[in-house]
Amino acid sequence: MMTEGSHSRSGAAQVVFTPSGRRGRFPAGTKILDAARALGVDLDSVCGGRGICGRCQVVQSIGEFPKHGVASRADHLSAFGPIEQRYHDKRAPLAPGRRLGCSTEIRGDVVIDVPPDSQVHRQVVRKRAEVHAIRVDPVVRLHFIEVTPPDMHEPAGDLRRVEAALREEWGVEGVRCDLAVLETLQTTLRSGEWRVTVAVHGGRDVIGVWPGFRDKAYGAAVDVGSTTIAAHLCELSSGEVVASAGAMNPQIRFGEDLMSRVSYVMMHPGGEREMTAAVRVAIRGLLHEAAAEAGIAPEEILDVTLVGNPIMHHLLLGLSPVELGQAPFALAVDAAVNLTAGALDLGLHPGARAYVLPCVAGHVGADTAGVILSEAPYLRDEINLVVDVGTNAEIVLGSRERMLAASSPTGPAFEGAQISCGQRAAPGAVERVRIDPITLEPRYRVIGNEAWSDEPGFAAAGGAVTGICGSGIIEVVAEMYLAGIVDEDGVILPGGAGRSGRIVEDGRTFAYVLHRGDVEVRVTQNDVRAIQLAKAALYAGVRLLMDRLGVERVDRIRLAGAFGSHIDVKYAMVLGLVPDCALEHVTSAGNAAGTGARIALLDRSARPEIERTVRRIEKVETAVEPRFQAHFVEAMAIPHKTAAYPELAKAVVLPARKSARAGGEGVGRRRRRGRLR
Amino acid sequence: MMTEGSHSRSGAAQVVFTPSGRRGRFPAGTKILDAARALGVDLDSVCGGRGICGRCQVVQSIGEFPKHGVASRADHLSAFGPIEQRYHDKRAPLAPGRRLGCSTEIRGDVVIDVPPDSQVHRQVVRKRAEVHAIRVDPVVRLHFIEVTPPDMHEPAGDLRRVEAALREEWGVEGVRCDLAVLETLQTTLRSGEWRVTVAVHGGRDVIGVWPGFRDKAYGAAVDVGSTTIAAHLCELSSGEVVASAGAMNPQIRFGEDLMSRVSYVMMHPGGEREMTAAVRVAIRGLLHEAAAEAGIAPEEILDVTLVGNPIMHHLLLGLSPVELGQAPFALAVDAAVNLTAGALDLGLHPGARAYVLPCVAGHVGADTAGVILSEAPYLRDEINLVVDVGTNAEIVLGSRERMLAASSPTGPAFEGAQISCGQRAAPGAVERVRIDPITLEPRYRVIGNEAWSDEPGFAAAGGAVTGICGSGIIEVVAEMYLAGIVDEDGVILPGGAGRSGRIVEDGRTFAYVLHRGDVEVRVTQNDVRAIQLAKAALYAGVRLLMDRLGVERVDRIRLAGAFGSHIDVKYAMVLGLVPDCALEHVTSAGNAAGTGARIALLDRSARPEIERTVRRIEKVETAVEPRFQAHFVEAMAIPHKTAAYPELAKAVVLPARKSARAGGEGVGRRRRRGRLR
Repeated sequence: MMTEGSHSRSGAAQVVFTPSGRRGRFPAGTKILDAARALGVDLDSVCGGRGICGRCQVVQSIGEFPKHGVASRADHLSAFGPIEQRYHDKRAPLAPGRRLGCSTEIRGDVVIDVPPDSQVHRQVVRKRAEVHAIRVDPVVRLHFIEVTPPDMHEPAGDLRRVEAALREEWGVEGVRCDLAVLETLQTTLRSGEWRVTVAVHGGRDVIGVWPGFRDKAYGAAVDVGSTTIAAHLCELSSGEVVASAGAMNPQIRFGEDLMSRVSYVMMHPGGEREMTAAVRVAIRGLLHEAAAEAGIAPEEILDVTLVGNPIMHHLLLGLSPVELGQAPFALAVDAAVNLTAGALDLGLHPGARAYVLPCVAGHVGADTAGVILSEAPYLRDEINLVVDVGTNAEIVLGSRERMLAASSPTGPAFEGAQISCGQRAAPGAVERVRIDPITLEPRYRVIGNEAWSDEPGFAAAGGAVTGICGSGIIEVVAEMYLAGIVDEDGVILPGGAGRSGRIVEDGRTFAYVLHRGDVEVRVTQNDVRAIQLAKAALYAGVRLLMDRLGVERVDRIRLAGAFGSHIDVKYAMVLGLVPDCALEHVTSAGNAAGTGARIALLDRSARPEIERTVRRIEKVETAVEPRFQAHFVEAMAIPHKTAAYPELAKAVVLPARKSARAGGEGVGRRRRRGRLR
Repeated sequence: MMTEGSHSRSGAAQVVFTPSGRRGRFPAGTKILDAARALGVDLDSVCGGRGICGRCQVVQSIGEFPKHGVASRADHLSAFGPIEQRYHDKRAPLAPGRRLGCSTEIRGDVVIDVPPDSQVHRQVVRKRAEVHAIRVDPVVRLHFIEVTPPDMHEPAGDLRRVEAALREEWGVEGVRCDLAVLETLQTTLRSGEWRVTVAVHGGRDVIGVWPGFRDKAYGAAVDVGSTTIAAHLCELSSGEVVASAGAMNPQIRFGEDLMSRVSYVMMHPGGEREMTAAVRVAIRGLLHEAAAEAGIAPEEILDVTLVGNPIMHHLLLGLSPVELGQAPFALAVDAAVNLTAGALDLGLHPGARAYVLPCVAGHVGADTAGVILSEAPYLRDEINLVVDVGTNAEIVLGSRERMLAASSPTGPAFEGAQISCGQRAAPGAVERVRIDPITLEPRYRVIGNEAWSDEPGFAAAGGAVTGICGSGIIEVVAEMYLAGIVDEDGVILPGGAGRSGRIVEDGRTFAYVLHRGDVEVRVTQNDVRAIQLAKAALYAGVRLLMDRLGVERVDRIRLAGAFGSHIDVKYAMVLGLVPDCALEHVTSAGNAAGTGARIALLDRSARPEIERTVRRIEKVETAVEPRFQAHFVEAMAIPHKTAAYPELAKAVVLPARKSARAGGEGVGRRRRRGRLR
């Protein structure tokens, strides 16, 4: 390459690459791929410039030179040649104008465009566009190499000649080789006639070798929840999810919730081994299922990333969770764990690796690390609140300046547990509720039925109602409040019983009957209390972090996890689960923990990034913070007015008022008015 | 520490350490161990200065200050204190004058001597003093640490606090931790009340953890021969061999020699797996046997080094040896192999590591690397020839300037195979022979019997003779030559038959009857030919390397391996196995391959040293060198005269002549005279 400042002379051509803008002068005859490499232009190649992989496709930009005004002519590149023709005929048709950078020569001044699919560091767009796209630069890369055959006069072993090819063709230096690769190396080199594809992990470990050319490698991101396990199988070079699978966590038979699993180990020393085996078998099954769905062999999976809460994390790794069940909640290891997938008995490629994201603290695990990686509050200027609600709520608050995290003991009410008619989110569970503030009659929707209960399609679709799930219980309590059935203190007011048959005596308190049928679904005073306790715990945890950070409000709230995906954030605001925030800035983050695992799978730079980030997060232990109790007590009441009120009013409260005004005064009118004043 | 140049002032004492000569000024009250560390003085400690391990013992030198002439007074150190008393009473008595460096304070100017046993880099003296002693600085080190207990407000996992202790107490940074260590880490820390000993491999991997203080760690050096396997168990901090064990290589049932084992795999694809399993079971058994002999558990073995020829090397690692059986004799891997001992199924500590020395080439294996490490010709100025004779002879020639290696196909004659009455070196085998040049009557000694055959004790000790071993066949052929029974061309001369009943017709040639009894031991013409072929191959290989190096003579010859240990080098010179060299510079190197494995076990710097050295050795392939054949043919004859003649004459030839002259002319007199002219 000649520098740009050198004189234009016979045989030297100026090349400009877009979109990078990198430019340089090269002798006529230089291959585009070589020019791109010399300039550090991000142009992919797996086959090392042999016209096999088609990853280095480029397009000649027709038109003016950006600065110098030199026309970029068609004959400034070599003609479409036999290697391109062979690729086009035998492997995949080349779109019009597309050229293979490895076999096209520069003949004169040209502008070359590298389309996004030819860039190594391409990106996959995530479904929700609020956050950054995932950069695809996986830890495992495939390299096609041609290895020098052995020579009696130069006694280098086969591996040393593989290393030489990696160094010379790919600039990959100082690799180590798995023993399992060595076992097949000699036969693979000979069956591939000295042309093989090797998989290199982290630019360092040779973990696989196959005869001939190969350009697909797979990885899986696994979210190990205490209830369910979900796996996404990705093609590593495109970042595309090719299959997904989910299953119940079989550890449930040792205990429904986390603490009962810890108790199991306390009462059955060594019991962690059974649970470890159970979860590994389940993950192995999921990965094999996903592989079958994608039409690949499990041995094609070369990398796995895993997230889970601290207890799931320990049980996955075969570590006793006993210390996590008692103060001071010491993790065996909080750093990220790198190991072979074989150490977890996952039945994948013999060289497959596994990466378990780091934990933040004894109550805030690798799942939260995944959420943090996915939401990246540490890259933002504004104050972010990220809440992942499960049995505990993991709370992360902060910005690029400073990050705090805590876990708050919400209990399982938000998941529909410990609610009289509660159930898991499954077909038949009430998930949406509206209550007419005049008649106090409800309308609702159940999972698995698109119609509302007062629409004709409801009965047609079966109309079965089996209980109420987490998002349904939030909505019904909020609607009961808006309809004046419960007051700010969460008391189901006795006055309603006279106005509507829906409000019934229930021992010494009252209950609201949401559904009558084979199964009666009612909301009792205890249910409202359970929701109040849960939301108070969540809110108190958030307040504690806000106190510590010294902020009175947050700029943006993200609700992660299954709960966050299903609840209507407006109702979360009405009940005061989270602090004041402009409504449009309160959104669901989906399965952010799983997304974080996928990011760690696809983007090698994400691993050191989350490892660094997790270490600088300040952990707040709610259990020993005296102010937690005070915040908790305060947060029991349903809030009067929030900063989000104008929007909430428009979306939820005003329609209710309007409806109430049209039909006469509702039970809770005075109180509601007071609230709206 | 204050620099030496600082002014002497109240409270600052000058300290000089011997034998290092390092000196500095320290405030009064500084512990001797701290002063030593500040000055980089080589003073050991395992317990980190807690008065437990006793490794930091020092002695105050009474007398003058080396330069300044300041008296070193007894009260310039703190008095013998309670920690020292406790160590003396409870752990091990302190010799008079010995102090614990970690609990003794400097009070005034002193000279402190660090005795050899208190130095980290102590040395073990090898039995043969010709070569450098082994530096003891093992790859695996034990560190006693006190770990900060967990704190709810500082959520670092247990491992992170272990890492902090390693960093702060020992300067060991950036460690990784085995999953198996993590599995026991929490219970170990708690049972040890936060005082534990960790084993760190290569300053990098935490491979073991034990509650409380521990100061013994073990390793094993294993020499995997095609016939026998030998293991030496060493205590890693002292370097001492605490037990040894040997066994036959069970692969023998798949084929007596190397090529028949390769053939077995060729004919039974996958057959390498059976041989791999067999050799690993044997090594495991040996290591367990050695551990039992030393009174330790196999789990106390933390590191293993292994050597073997290329085929043993591949079969040990589970690699097919098929490529090694055919040109171009490509190794799968020639670099050193680092792996867990678990990968070899050795049944040791779960974190134990294994290190397989590098191979030089397809015919020159890790055993030769061990020989090279042990003999260190690459550190010498003079030209060294190192020969390791087995079925093939591995030949290494050179000096610090340049190193060459080759393998020469001697065949198994030197091991007693393919000799009519040959046998392995075992009780009953003739190993020493003298023939009276007048009477042609022999005297001999057999293995397992201290007496010569003409001594009264011979029959008393049983007198059983079963055959002749490698060293015996060398001696008998050389003595037959010296007695004139065979000529320079190796022909058993017919003329002898008339003079002695020992020389008998044997088909169309003659034979020499060495022993008559239940078993007749005779040396046939074919036997002499076999020895001629073997010695010609060896000599031709050596000559080839000498040609390549451009030297006409070598300065020093070392004969390694069992053969080298047993033969009388004088007879090797008489027969011309090796080139001219002053007799006192031709010596046996013992089991140099095994010694090399032991060096790699005990001295961490030896590993990169042999890896670098092996790569710069030039390999000469005898099979394709045209000059090899010419040298071979030339070397068939028994040499007329060697440069070592004056000494040989004194040791072997002249006594024979004298004896012959006293008793009249022997059969071969004319020829011998010719030779001596």
